[in-house]
Amino acid sequence: MQTDYKLHFACVFYILSSILRSNMDHYEELKNICKDRATAVPAELCCYGADGSQVKGKPDYVLFPKTTAEVSQILAYANTHLIPVTARGAGTGLAGGAVPVNGGILLDMSQMNQILSIDIDNIQVTVEPGIVADKLNEALKPYGFFFPPDPGSAATCTVGGQIANNASGMRCVKYGTTKNYVLNLEVVLADGSVINTGLNCLKSSSGYDLSRLLVGSEGTLGIITKAVLKIAPIPKARKLVMISFPSPENAGLSVSRVFAAGVTPSACEILDRTSVSVLTKLDPDVIFPRDGDVVLFEVDGSKNAVDEAAELLAKACEDISSSILITDDPVKMKEIWDARRLLGAAVSKIDPTKTRIYVGEDLGVPIQKLPAMISKVYEITGEVGITPMIYGHVGDGTVHVGLFIDVLDENEWQKLHAAADKLHLAAIELGGTVSSEHGIGAARGMYMEKQCGPAFTVMKTIKKALDPNGILNPGKLGL
Amino acid sequence: MQTDYKLHFACVFYILSSILRSNMDHYEELKNICKDRATAVPAELCCYGADGSQVKGKPDYVLFPKTTAEVSQILAYANTHLIPVTARGAGTGLAGGAVPVNGGILLDMSQMNQILSIDIDNIQVTVEPGIVADKLNEALKPYGFFFPPDPGSAATCTVGGQIANNASGMRCVKYGTTKNYVLNLEVVLADGSVINTGLNCLKSSSGYDLSRLLVGSEGTLGIITKAVLKIAPIPKARKLVMISFPSPENAGLSVSRVFAAGVTPSACEILDRTSVSVLTKLDPDVIFPRDGDVVLFEVDGSKNAVDEAAELLAKACEDISSSILITDDPVKMKEIWDARRLLGAAVSKIDPTKTRIYVGEDLGVPIQKLPAMISKVYEITGEVGITPMIYGHVGDGTVHVGLFIDVLDENEWQKLHAAADKLHLAAIELGGTVSSEHGIGAARGMYMEKQCGPAFTVMKTIKKALDPNGILNPGKLGL
Repeated sequence: MQTDYKLHFACVFYILSSILRSNMDHYEELKNICKDRATAVPAELCCYGADGSQVKGKPDYVLFPKTTAEVSQILAYANTHLIPVTARGAGTGLAGGAVPVNGGILLDMSQMNQILSIDIDNIQVTVEPGIVADKLNEALKPYGFFFPPDPGSAATCTVGGQIANNASGMRCVKYGTTKNYVLNLEVVLADGSVINTGLNCLKSSSGYDLSRLLVGSEGTLGIITKAVLKIAPIPKARKLVMISFPSPENAGLSVSRVFAAGVTPSACEILDRTSVSVLTKLDPDVIFPRDGDVVLFEVDGSKNAVDEAAELLAKACEDISSSILITDDPVKMKEIWDARRLLGAAVSKIDPTKTRIYVGEDLGVPIQKLPAMISKVYEITGEVGITPMIYGHVGDGTVHVGLFIDVLDENEWQKLHAAADKLHLAAIELGGTVSSEHGIGAARGMYMEKQCGPAFTVMKTIKKALDPNGILNPGKLGL
Repeated sequence: MQTDYKLHFACVFYILSSILRSNMDHYEELKNICKDRATAVPAELCCYGADGSQVKGKPDYVLFPKTTAEVSQILAYANTHLIPVTARGAGTGLAGGAVPVNGGILLDMSQMNQILSIDIDNIQVTVEPGIVADKLNEALKPYGFFFPPDPGSAATCTVGGQIANNASGMRCVKYGTTKNYVLNLEVVLADGSVINTGLNCLKSSSGYDLSRLLVGSEGTLGIITKAVLKIAPIPKARKLVMISFPSPENAGLSVSRVFAAGVTPSACEILDRTSVSVLTKLDPDVIFPRDGDVVLFEVDGSKNAVDEAAELLAKACEDISSSILITDDPVKMKEIWDARRLLGAAVSKIDPTKTRIYVGEDLGVPIQKLPAMISKVYEITGEVGITPMIYGHVGDGTVHVGLFIDVLDENEWQKLHAAADKLHLAAIELGGTVSSEHGIGAARGMYMEKQCGPAFTVMKTIKKALDPNGILNPGKLGL
């Protein structure tokens, strides 16, 4: 790896400048820019030192900008004084993306949370980054539209965080990830200049796709201050098809069978037999088959389309499955999805001494490699004596691994981290990714070179070209 | 605009080095790399000096690489000797993207035309860039799958060209543009190094999206040597709904009505009343309504879904339309689509003295601005006395303008270019794009700064960072 002299120099300069000019001097200047919306109270700073991952950090001060102009002034100041800047939405990340691991400025974007326009005729909305995903969808509902990317944290996460992370969830198999819905971003660059990455058109073929470059860049190339997003009509009907398979191989095979039958399911979730047994232990009456690995398919659309899709889907899997349940009973569907959502926390409920830790939890592989990945998960966790739970979005190759330990036992922590490391390497070995949808942040940066190969050098080149002083979210993406 | 000293220096260096070391010396070296698959015969070079646009150029020599290693060696050599390199697929472009305006090396990619794998289980194919789009779809057909991006030139254009241009067509309103289907590209960079821009997974949230950065970069950042593409199931049924409207405003309004009704049409084409009258003059029996501006909607999917969608669609437009025809008769559908496809050439058939020239032909605006854009087209062309024909993909705001002149009349050429300039500026004024799907190339580079604003500086920064000597397709994208 090439030594990053510029970054080292920036660090040294930052330390020296801190001696000459105290942090509190900077704070006063920055607080002025934000019209006193700022804090440097240690207890409050602590709240900004973590997210859902094991990454920890602490900002020197937190600023609450309300306008693009304020963000621009803050960045121009930070760039001059080489102060790190980390943007944060709701802090629901699972890889430390919004954790200020190098200190500096924490930009809490939650006060820039307005829906600026709902423009149904142009099939788009314009929002500030701090709007909570579910709130946006509540506002769109009366118009019959929704913003499809559906991370598990939608009730609290911000749309800005979703964009920075290219978040997605169960329904991305049909609807795609956040990047498919971003038309145009207003972004403040490292030097404080403001750009629009695209247009408010649904289509344009005009130069480099800066919108997609920014989506998933985790705050390392610029701070998003406004987003124009494509929206989609809320489907009129849904139907659930729950299929159990005699093996994970058959479960994996079902996906291409279903696609080949001309059906694009709106969700396609795998629960291995361990996951199912956890659910049945928790609730012996839960509507889940007991005879194998389960895939929950959902289809959505208009009434007849949904009926037909469910039939086609069931037919496509008939000869490789053990049992099939089709339902559009809202009560049953809710029960099944609630059980699925409970999965992450289920083991903790059964054994209160165990806590789920989010490490190695977000693997992704080509669909056909799912059975191999699942075998690897059992093998690796078996070696260290941790029982995993496996679930995920089989339609796009996402394998969520639930690892549970006694957090008071230092030995278990060591085993956990050893297992997570091996899981990441196994995913890469299978041509997969260390993060399918949760992001790289500070938790997975060490795998970027191995996963991306020489393309990682290109990422570094782009980072240096657009943020030459390395002030934007340093310590992330392995950059 | 900032003066690009580096590019000037590169040009001067190139001229000087050409004096010291003749082009033919370079040619011999490059020919060796390509194992004699090369030409410098002037008559043959002329074939590589144009595409479907008015942009002209001439390469110094044409190379026909067959492997990534050859492309890598060629680029390393070109980078050392500062020789421009322009890649070309089938030369079907409409903006001069593949025209070597600065001379140098023309890489004819048509011999790298293999389908390397069809992997239905992973819902993807791996191809070389020179494969013709329709040939790929022929190969996929027996599996029940297809590669959805459908430019009008699909019968001859290459997939590499589609990617470099982010091509799309009528069906992108449902299926998205080429960028939605690129999983992973093998790309040779300016210095000859080879990267993979992504993984063969359907989903990954791991750093900068280099795949999307390369898609639509028109050969200015790297040469694509391999592509892993997502594919989609061929729909089982199609239905056409042809609706005429009393005004272009109502035609424009129909789109959001249809989306709001929960229908995502697989095509959504507008033909203004001038276009329709051209078609009816050409064939008085053509099945087109004579009473207004027409939108052709197509819905696809499973049988019942298609029936239901057609009904919903018609209902959504009932009170704003003049007449509605629903058909799934393959003969009628073919006749209607054939007439639509004939449109570009129709005027020439009626008046053999007129030829359609592709300038200002690919505007795009937010959907709601379509009526305003259409008015502007009439106003601008009216001023110079050219009758336009307007058609396009109303579902995504694409306005194709057909302008026809007597090519032997210099005065008509002047009027044409004046009109095209005003059309581009009008699209930008309406928040739109000078290219919705045909690309910028050399034909529209002069509008990039105006359209992109400060973001254009970011594009230049990226270009300089990844191609510091400016050898890759110089003179394109306004860079």
